[in-house]
Amino acid sequence: MAIWLEQQAADFEAQFKAFLTTKREVSEDVNAVVRDIIKDVQTRGDAALADYTLRFEKVDLNTVGLQVTEAEIDAAVAVTDPKVLDALKLAAERIEKHHARQMPKDDIYEDAIGVGLGSRWTAIEAVGLYVPGGTASYPSSVLMNAVPARVAGVPRMVMVVPAGGGSINPAVLAAARIAGVTEIYRVGGAQAVAALAYGTETIAPVAKIVGPGNAYVAAAKRQVFGTVGIDMIAGPSEVLVIADAENDPDWIAADLLAQAEHDAGAQSIVITDNAEFGRAVEAAVERQLKTLSRSETAAASWRDFGAIILVDDLQASIPLANRIAAEHLELAVADPDALMAKITNAGAIFVGRHTPEVIGDYVGGSNHVLPTARSARFSSGLGVLDFVKRTSILRLGPEQLRALGPAAITLAHSEGLDAHARSVAIRLNQES
Amino acid sequence: MAIWLEQQAADFEAQFKAFLTTKREVSEDVNAVVRDIIKDVQTRGDAALADYTLRFEKVDLNTVGLQVTEAEIDAAVAVTDPKVLDALKLAAERIEKHHARQMPKDDIYEDAIGVGLGSRWTAIEAVGLYVPGGTASYPSSVLMNAVPARVAGVPRMVMVVPAGGGSINPAVLAAARIAGVTEIYRVGGAQAVAALAYGTETIAPVAKIVGPGNAYVAAAKRQVFGTVGIDMIAGPSEVLVIADAENDPDWIAADLLAQAEHDAGAQSIVITDNAEFGRAVEAAVERQLKTLSRSETAAASWRDFGAIILVDDLQASIPLANRIAAEHLELAVADPDALMAKITNAGAIFVGRHTPEVIGDYVGGSNHVLPTARSARFSSGLGVLDFVKRTSILRLGPEQLRALGPAAITLAHSEGLDAHARSVAIRLNQES
Repeated sequence: MAIWLEQQAADFEAQFKAFLTTKREVSEDVNAVVRDIIKDVQTRGDAALADYTLRFEKVDLNTVGLQVTEAEIDAAVAVTDPKVLDALKLAAERIEKHHARQMPKDDIYEDAIGVGLGSRWTAIEAVGLYVPGGTASYPSSVLMNAVPARVAGVPRMVMVVPAGGGSINPAVLAAARIAGVTEIYRVGGAQAVAALAYGTETIAPVAKIVGPGNAYVAAAKRQVFGTVGIDMIAGPSEVLVIADAENDPDWIAADLLAQAEHDAGAQSIVITDNAEFGRAVEAAVERQLKTLSRSETAAASWRDFGAIILVDDLQASIPLANRIAAEHLELAVADPDALMAKITNAGAIFVGRHTPEVIGDYVGGSNHVLPTARSARFSSGLGVLDFVKRTSILRLGPEQLRALGPAAITLAHSEGLDAHARSVAIRLNQES
Repeated sequence: MAIWLEQQAADFEAQFKAFLTTKREVSEDVNAVVRDIIKDVQTRGDAALADYTLRFEKVDLNTVGLQVTEAEIDAAVAVTDPKVLDALKLAAERIEKHHARQMPKDDIYEDAIGVGLGSRWTAIEAVGLYVPGGTASYPSSVLMNAVPARVAGVPRMVMVVPAGGGSINPAVLAAARIAGVTEIYRVGGAQAVAALAYGTETIAPVAKIVGPGNAYVAAAKRQVFGTVGIDMIAGPSEVLVIADAENDPDWIAADLLAQAEHDAGAQSIVITDNAEFGRAVEAAVERQLKTLSRSETAAASWRDFGAIILVDDLQASIPLANRIAAEHLELAVADPDALMAKITNAGAIFVGRHTPEVIGDYVGGSNHVLPTARSARFSSGLGVLDFVKRTSILRLGPEQLRALGPAAITLAHSEGLDAHARSVAIRLNQES
């Protein structure tokens, strides 16, 4: 049973505040263990990777090899259902087309007094992509992380993936090939992150690491941050559906459960202006839950974090949605554009009754790596900008230096930085 | 005495590698202290701010008030040297003009099959700007952090600054007014960061915190990250000058010292193809050091971290510069464009002999908050993009859902996510 919040209630604001700040994750403190693993990989390189992989994955890298070979990838592609391959290719094409539009353009220009200024974008030289093993190993996530890097022009894309029990999900290897990953290593956990950050005999270091992982992977990414760049550390997934009474309750219930089945910490929320509709959605959720393969996970998520929020009218949903700042926001209403215009905080918006969030997970073309836990207030989904960096350019001749130099000297002296002042004054042939 | 590295030396690669990985900062472990301060501010709000401010800054907020008043800012502007005010205004105008070009544009479109896709940019709703007290309180940094936020359209810009001994540098308050800061509070340290992240009775919380600070501020920013966004945690500043023998050694020495005077952990490096020129620069540094007000700091930086790298020809400087990935790169050579075309890793490039890095610190128009410690390999300087976030938009009608739905269902099933499959199938009137 999800909780009900009603705008009419006298203590609604207090209830909503408490709801907003509910923690949905227990973060294990694995920092000490991870620190030791990272140090060990820095010191012993490949040998450390082999030891941890034998211990944690029961795989002997000395026998099967650290790097996944082209022949293995060929074999994985061969055993992947052709329907799945086709769907992955469709997804990759659509992701590529959409992300190509995100590529920033250089801007090099001269201002009115002849100062040359500019922003120049270059691709990151090497990127590591972490892919979890086991049930959380999603080929769609390989595409979502790797295709934007390829679009950005990253020349070296290194994937690491643990081979629990000796095997890697063939569809993951197929997705890696479709996305243009250039190297794949059979290693996971904190040790894989350490190898990507510091390098080993076999694995050259990268400049940035992206991709989801468990508590050990997340802690390792935080610890190597600075030495390399990292993407955001994603929390459990969430969806907010704003729905009027004209929807089929079963459609909305299906969308809520699609989010809930991810993780017991996932969160599904409906805001509606119709109490009867809210109750119908709730009943549909209970009904559909019984038939799901992951019903235990979905039921726990819905019970612990699900919510139905009843508002007086749909306009009132806007400030609430902006405070929730959901990773995924569905607008299942008659006039979604009117609401959308006023939404400022959301990772992604799914417009209208025929755009279930799941389309965005796979084949919409937009990225499914999106800010969770209210971080859409200050951050964006993964995209091409995460795989490039901007160098700023400044160019003065003697004339421009004469025009701007005196103000720089004034500010340098006012900040007590005499050597700064001299660096300009000496070129103007003057004492500073 | 800086170190010399010569490309001709047999062990050059080993020496260069060791040089690259030299740590220039001792990071104090203040995490436990900071954790307690943050908890206390979360619990006791303004009262906790008053207690810490009395203890650390010897300022009684109950007497002088937490918020800096408009009258105080008026008074600060009145006592600031008009030459400094003019220079700050010139700087702010140039920063504003340059950063306005960085504003990303929305991209809303329909693809070939009628799917609506889009990227929509919105400003972060509230940003906190940390400004250090005492000698590290730089008005120029206020402009560099606040002007891009204003350009981005951030409606609420909150500055916090400690008032050591009761007073705030008037030029800092003047810069805040010029930059359009909307609220200023007289509080610093971890307690100020906690107040910005969680709010108190007087200070409403913000969504992102930017600006430099000491070890306590840096640790607090790391700890509140997730609740709010933060900018990068900057390390000591650095400059790399690639210089041919045609330069005046005194100009290059002045540039090296402008960097070195910032911090004993700052780093100044020259790469040249002429040993005699290198020795002349070294001699000029020693000569100029004697006359600097901050000669002790500059001497320590140059002694511990300064370097002169001698290469066979200037082309050989390119791979070294890309590995160093300097915050600031000066190209003081006859044909800077030839080198610049091959530089991929640098925070900012200063082109030609008449562009000392110091111009970029103040009045060039580009931002002086740049990636340090080799992080230009994967990150960019501060800019408008740091104050906006992107929402992605997806819009399908029944026809588009029929076109894309089946591939989404295939991928959902292949990932074992049945509720995902159902959320699409139910809209196609089919069993998943």
